[in-house]
Formats: sequence, C-alpha cells, structure tokens
Amino acid sequence: MSREGKIYGVGLGPGAPDLMSVRADRLLRGASHIAYFRKAGRAGRARAIAEGIMPQTATEIAMEYPVTTEIALDDPAYNRALSEFYAAQAARLAALSAQGRDVVVLCEGDPFFYGSFMHLHARLAGAVPVEIVPGITGMSGAWTASGQPITWGDDVLTVLTATLPEDELARRLRGTDAAVVMKIGRNMAKLRRACETAGRASDAFVVQYAQMPQQSVTRLSDAPESVPYFTILLIHGQGRRP
Amino acid sequence: MSREGKIYGVGLGPGAPDLMSVRADRLLRGASHIAYFRKAGRAGRARAIAEGIMPQTATEIAMEYPVTTEIALDDPAYNRALSEFYAAQAARLAALSAQGRDVVVLCEGDPFFYGSFMHLHARLAGAVPVEIVPGITGMSGAWTASGQPITWGDDVLTVLTATLPEDELARRLRGTDAAVVMKIGRNMAKLRRACETAGRASDAFVVQYAQMPQQSVTRLSDAPESVPYFTILLIHGQGRRP
Repeated sequence: MSREGKIYGVGLGPGAPDLMSVRADRLLRGASHIAYFRKAGRAGRARAIAEGIMPQTATEIAMEYPVTTEIALDDPAYNRALSEFYAAQAARLAALSAQGRDVVVLCEGDPFFYGSFMHLHARLAGAVPVEIVPGITGMSGAWTASGQPITWGDDVLTVLTATLPEDELARRLRGTDAAVVMKIGRNMAKLRRACETAGRASDAFVVQYAQMPQQSVTRLSDAPESVPYFTILLIHGQGRRP
Repeated sequence: MSREGKIYGVGLGPGAPDLMSVRADRLLRGASHIAYFRKAGRAGRARAIAEGIMPQTATEIAMEYPVTTEIALDDPAYNRALSEFYAAQAARLAALSAQGRDVVVLCEGDPFFYGSFMHLHARLAGAVPVEIVPGITGMSGAWTASGQPITWGDDVLTVLTATLPEDELARRLRGTDAAVVMKIGRNMAKLRRACETAGRASDAFVVQYAQMPQQSVTRLSDAPESVPYFTILLIHGQGRRP
C-alpha cells in the first residue's frame, strides 16, 4: 500500500506573490495537485496569486462555493449548504490523500485566521495528514500599506468583522486603542455609522486591495460606500513611544 | 551627488528562516549593509534567523539596547535612555543613506506590529527613503503551532500585552471571543491570575518559541511560571462554523 498523501494548507499572504513565504513558494513550485476556493464563474483570488509560481502541469481542484451572498447568513439553508459543501470538498481531498497524492490548498492571508480552509481542516485533522504553513495576514498587508504602525507599547488591538451588529461594533471601537475591521463589503454604511458613534471616524483609514496593483488607502471620510468584501478598516494605536 | 540609499524594515516572520517572505529573502541575500537590534552581549534573535541567508560579506550594524529590564518601564530615565538610543541609531542609518547605501533592518515578526523598528521609522520617515516589508507575525506562528484556528465566523480577537494591569487583563479576556497575549516574560503569574479571574484559564494555551526548533505548546495549567519574553498565550475563538 502506498503512503498517504499530505494536505497542505498554505498561506499565500495578502496579495503580492513575493509576499508568500519561502516555504509556501517552494511547496507551490513542487506541487502536483493544487486546490483552491472560488466563487462560481470567477477565476479565484488565491489562484490568481499563485499564477506564475505553480507548475502549469499541476492538476487543479477548484472548490466552488455553493452560495455566498444569495442566502442570508442566519438562514439555516445557508449553513446546511455550506456544511455539505465543506464535507464534499474534504472527502475529495481525503480521497486524493488515500491515493498517495500530496495536495497544496491555496489560502489567502493566513490559513488559521478567518479562513475557509479551517472548515476543511476541522473535517480532515486526525484522519488525514495535514500541515499548515502560516502566511502574512491581509491586515498586516493593510497596515503596511497605510505607512503607519498599528500598535505601540501596551496598545490593545481589537480585530472585528463588519458583520457584527452596529451597536457592538461601536462599543468595541470605543473601547480599544487600535482596531482592524475585516469583511466589510456591503457593511460599509453600518461600519461608518459605528465609527461615528464611537468617536473614532476621524482616526479611521480604509485600505482596498492591500499589496495588490490596485491598492488604495484613504481616510474613512473619503472612502466610497461601495467597497469589495476584502476591504479593511484600520484605526492605528497611539501608545507609548520613547 | 550619489542617490540616497533606502532603509528597508524587513519582517523576518516568527522564527523559521523559510517563513520569511520571498521578498525578504531576496533583499537579505542581496544586502550589503544589515542592521539589527540586540541586547548587549547577546547574538540577537533577528540576526540568528538571518544567519545562513544574509551574505557573509555584509557590513553588520548591531544596535544594542541601552536598557531592557534593568530600569522600570515607568521610570522617566527608561524613556530618556531609549529615546536617545533610537535617535542615535536613526542618525546612523540616515548617514548610511546619505552615502548612497541601502540598509536592510532585520525585524522579528512584522515590523509594524509591536516592533522596535517602528521607533526608527518614526524618526526616519519623510526624511530618508524607507520601505517596509511585512512579515508573518509571531502570533500567527503561535496559533499555527497550536494546531487550531484562532478565529471563526464573527469572532472578536483581542490582542493584549501582559504588561497591562491585572484587572484590565481580566476584563479584556472576559469580554472577547479569541485572545492573544504578547510580551509575557516576567508577567506570567499576573497573567495566570487574570485568566482565572476571567474564567478563561481552562481555554488558554501557552506557546514558547513558536516555529523554532525548541517550540513548545502547553495548556496554561501545565505552563511553567518562568517563561521567555516572547512567549504567547492563546485563547481560540469558538465562533460560527458550518
């Protein structure tokens, strides 16, 4: 019987291909099987980062989300559809492992930080060999793009998703030194109101497409109402500095 | 007149040399001048990560902290000594830039996330060409080492330093889904009490030397009282997962 293959969850970093780790780059260049998530009908952001690094001969395993924003998050049908999807993709990867194939799964940012791969990891770990390669997070890419450090001295950093209720966003933004808000997309108007309620709107910056050619950094007051899902809001800490 | 040299603040990641980015690796391999912080009389952690990658012929600029733990943080003499130190090192790098030299400054983790380089950046930016290369944070290295994702769904992540007062640590740990506590060192006993007060002690893991050969991950209950400064405590989020 051949050895089991290993499933690698590989962090690609925030967007620029040369911001992936040397280990990730080496794994991608040597990969025979490469899997990635994407929206149906799209090329996929992770796949785009890997273009030019992964071998053209690699077998590609596109994992297409069954739903993204067509069904409300709190609809049980959303949860059921995603659960079945992740179970099916995990089974697909487990079958390749059983055939002795190593599979590199492309993960934007860091695999264990709000990533889709975590839902496969939860189903595979313990049953199949899995290894994680951490990556530079999207938020690191964003604060680097902003040209200012995010935390100094004893600063408290709070990381939030803009999917939270407006009053909770405002409360959390008021009570922290530094903040990062992820998953903005269609929640921009709510997030803007929460920043204003918290008295933090004038400190906030909005970063779109961090570390990609179309990168933009603006003050919140200059940011458009319509932004992509992966847009990140930053409030920089102002802590102790000698 | 020759062109000004550029000062690069380069994130090296959490410790394993192949977890630095491809861009960082390339800059290190091509560097003629390499600067790094270290405690007096020590080899320096950043320098150790770069060993085997940076050219043996590079000119090295060791920046030795004048004080670390000999003076209390709230003593004005501490602040004054560090302020003079950072001003002197910034002047040293600016002088090299004026001579047309590019300098790579080695930064553990990510340069803009609780890093010493930020204090040089604050003094150099605007006056001298400076470029930041983000890195994988020590906390990403730690949660990867723990084998569990840090945040799911809408989880709130709070990043704290163990230098905060005990009651503030306890309040913040109680009020968050996921937590990362940095800069532990001699604050371990206080942090342990804060975790217990917050009712989070049984969820907490302690990671020492993440992504280095001597890496260890234990439950807080099994962690020793004496740990190195760069030890990280993790409480994993348990948020929404289909």
